[in-house]
Amino acid sequence: HEGEEQKVIAVQTEALDERQLALLLEALPLEDRLQQWGRISDAQKPLVLVELKNDARLSILNNQSESELEGLFSELSPEELIECSDNLPDSLIDLALNQMDQKQRLHFESSNQFEENCIGRYADHELLVLPQNAKVFDAWRLLRREVPECTDALFLTDRVGRYAGTVPFEQLYGAPGHIPLAELIDEEAEALPGDTLLFDSVEVQEQSGYVLLPIIDAKGMLIGRMTFKDSVQILREKHEADMLAQAGLSEDEDLFSPIIKSSLRRATWLGINLLTAFLASWAIGLFEATLQQVVALAVLMPIVASMGGIAGSQTLTLIIRGIALGQISRGNLGPLMIKELWVGGLNGVFWSAVIGGIAYVWFSDVMIGVVIAVAIALNILAAAVSGVLIPVILDKFKIDPALSGSVILTTVTDVVGFVTFLGLGTLLLLNP
Amino acid sequence: HEGEEQKVIAVQTEALDERQLALLLEALPLEDRLQQWGRISDAQKPLVLVELKNDARLSILNNQSESELEGLFSELSPEELIECSDNLPDSLIDLALNQMDQKQRLHFESSNQFEENCIGRYADHELLVLPQNAKVFDAWRLLRREVPECTDALFLTDRVGRYAGTVPFEQLYGAPGHIPLAELIDEEAEALPGDTLLFDSVEVQEQSGYVLLPIIDAKGMLIGRMTFKDSVQILREKHEADMLAQAGLSEDEDLFSPIIKSSLRRATWLGINLLTAFLASWAIGLFEATLQQVVALAVLMPIVASMGGIAGSQTLTLIIRGIALGQISRGNLGPLMIKELWVGGLNGVFWSAVIGGIAYVWFSDVMIGVVIAVAIALNILAAAVSGVLIPVILDKFKIDPALSGSVILTTVTDVVGFVTFLGLGTLLLLNP
Repeated sequence: HEGEEQKVIAVQTEALDERQLALLLEALPLEDRLQQWGRISDAQKPLVLVELKNDARLSILNNQSESELEGLFSELSPEELIECSDNLPDSLIDLALNQMDQKQRLHFESSNQFEENCIGRYADHELLVLPQNAKVFDAWRLLRREVPECTDALFLTDRVGRYAGTVPFEQLYGAPGHIPLAELIDEEAEALPGDTLLFDSVEVQEQSGYVLLPIIDAKGMLIGRMTFKDSVQILREKHEADMLAQAGLSEDEDLFSPIIKSSLRRATWLGINLLTAFLASWAIGLFEATLQQVVALAVLMPIVASMGGIAGSQTLTLIIRGIALGQISRGNLGPLMIKELWVGGLNGVFWSAVIGGIAYVWFSDVMIGVVIAVAIALNILAAAVSGVLIPVILDKFKIDPALSGSVILTTVTDVVGFVTFLGLGTLLLLNP
Repeated sequence: HEGEEQKVIAVQTEALDERQLALLLEALPLEDRLQQWGRISDAQKPLVLVELKNDARLSILNNQSESELEGLFSELSPEELIECSDNLPDSLIDLALNQMDQKQRLHFESSNQFEENCIGRYADHELLVLPQNAKVFDAWRLLRREVPECTDALFLTDRVGRYAGTVPFEQLYGAPGHIPLAELIDEEAEALPGDTLLFDSVEVQEQSGYVLLPIIDAKGMLIGRMTFKDSVQILREKHEADMLAQAGLSEDEDLFSPIIKSSLRRATWLGINLLTAFLASWAIGLFEATLQQVVALAVLMPIVASMGGIAGSQTLTLIIRGIALGQISRGNLGPLMIKELWVGGLNGVFWSAVIGGIAYVWFSDVMIGVVIAVAIALNILAAAVSGVLIPVILDKFKIDPALSGSVILTTVTDVVGFVTFLGLGTLLLLNP
């Protein structure tokens, strides 16, 4: 399996930014990856490391000497260290912490108190902050020095560092220098508690009208900021994670994750799906005698299962989106079910007729046409009911329906499909 | 199916913003939806209309009187009209255009020249613009008047309105009033051509470091701006559309889209999948004689198909993400295929042994165990190859692999699975 020479086109890496370099490294098999990594400038390396997916990052760190590691971790900011601290050996984290000053270490600890899915963990500490008794000319002095990217407001704090208010820049533009900033506070501006879930914080950000939001801890202390840039990154990563989760994949997985690691991760998902496949087999096994006599039933089985599965996944997807948008409640579940049953009914009647006709022509047997037509119509109706109920029930038990909904749905439509199809076959084809 | 009284909880709509009201309306069956719509204030109605999905919007517009429609469309801004102009009858668009002033109509036409998936179409016209010979104090006069949301720079244009440069606010804070703004231009700031694809423009925005970008037309004229807020909305909508597309659903579809419309839309996807199911049936049909003699094969068929389908969809998903991130090239296709074959091989060996063992115990027949084990191992390898090649080939033909990849993959794994399983069964079980 080795031996073949890999020709990977050499890329001019100077023109690439950190994110592009990370994507490039992830796209390379291990050997080329390490070679390409060697070509990156020492200044960019730590930043590239932060951008890499977990698996890719570890694949590089595992191949660095002690002194190289020290070089890499000696210049990480607290925010960067947090970004890449998952799965990182404690020794490396300590290495990075030892090189930080007191203030940076405090920032790291402040972020590290929050869970991985909370906005507080990713708080940026580049803040424009003034005491709450500061005046407009103090703000100007601050602005003239330096304004961080993505900033359209400054924050006020009280003596102990508790968040006291947001002053939008536009309020400063016309204001005389002696006015206290406290008078220019936007009373409607919200502070984001650090334990807000990432996805929810995007929503708050979007509705705030601000480009950045202050993040506070449980005691009301101002611990950092979240910007629109974070929102974009959160949405991008959520999109990726959701897509991968549907196939039972981890978001850490890159194109060239280690083979053993990949195999083990994927094995779990294969195993779960195997259980549902065995359930379907068991359902078929109930009708061995029938199958022996009417082999046409075995031939047509996949069609019954497929139609139910596809129809069900359409309803399921619609309901999952509804749940994500907060649109499903006890109030509209009934009407929703009725509507889905109508849609399923219409498609059931239409496709039953088509498939029944084809089966009749194929096997020159009217009854086979009738059996498959009825089974498909019933299975599509069962799919509609399951498509509505399964995600609602999963959501009630706090299980993400996007993750496990489709496995459960397929199990239901497979079993219902096979039992109705082969059951009807037993009744109608064996006793003429 | 009627008759049942729907109790929908009355909601205090005053506290909700336009987006929340739109979500609420979409969550209601038609009758309740129209009733709730009646409770929304006239001032909010046009804004809610813009936020609604196409189907929901039409369901409301179809139930408004001529004079109500006139009221609704008399106050839309050009941006709002563009947002809801898809599928809108020309008469309503004319109605809205007639109420606009000359400048607004020009804005509408400027946006309308771009396709639905281009950023130019959604350009916001609330711009801070100054002539390129303006000075710093001109900028201050402008800023003191009013600063639009999400703004951290102003744009300069030449005499005919061509984009001439971006001046970041932070450059203004320390600058003396008599300095020409042209001297403060950020030379690295990019303008976004109006025909940039939505998703690409998010990328440009993110890398620019600015909260807003100028949008220009083919002649270089400044036609509007894009902000981070647009990026968030674009990502959100793309996520939703991608999820729905996987089930063959349109993004226009809401929970209570009209039954006939929903049924027709979904029928297409069911039909496409039916074709692939028939292919699988045809493959099984080749082995009718075998199935008649060894019914256990019919019972175990779903397991072979399922394992191949699941393993293939894992590879497929990984490759589709790689393509989306620009990580797949001729250079790494070979190594990638080898890695996926190894992962597939390991899982194939492991699960073949498990499933072969179970089949042996179930049917007390060693050879059945051997047949299913070999078939599953081969099918998982075929799945790895298809999972890599199908999306790459589709992408080459400019077909979105996220949309059709999984249908094609399932067809391949079904057919390969059934043919190897039943073919091996014919060879090994019929000729002892």
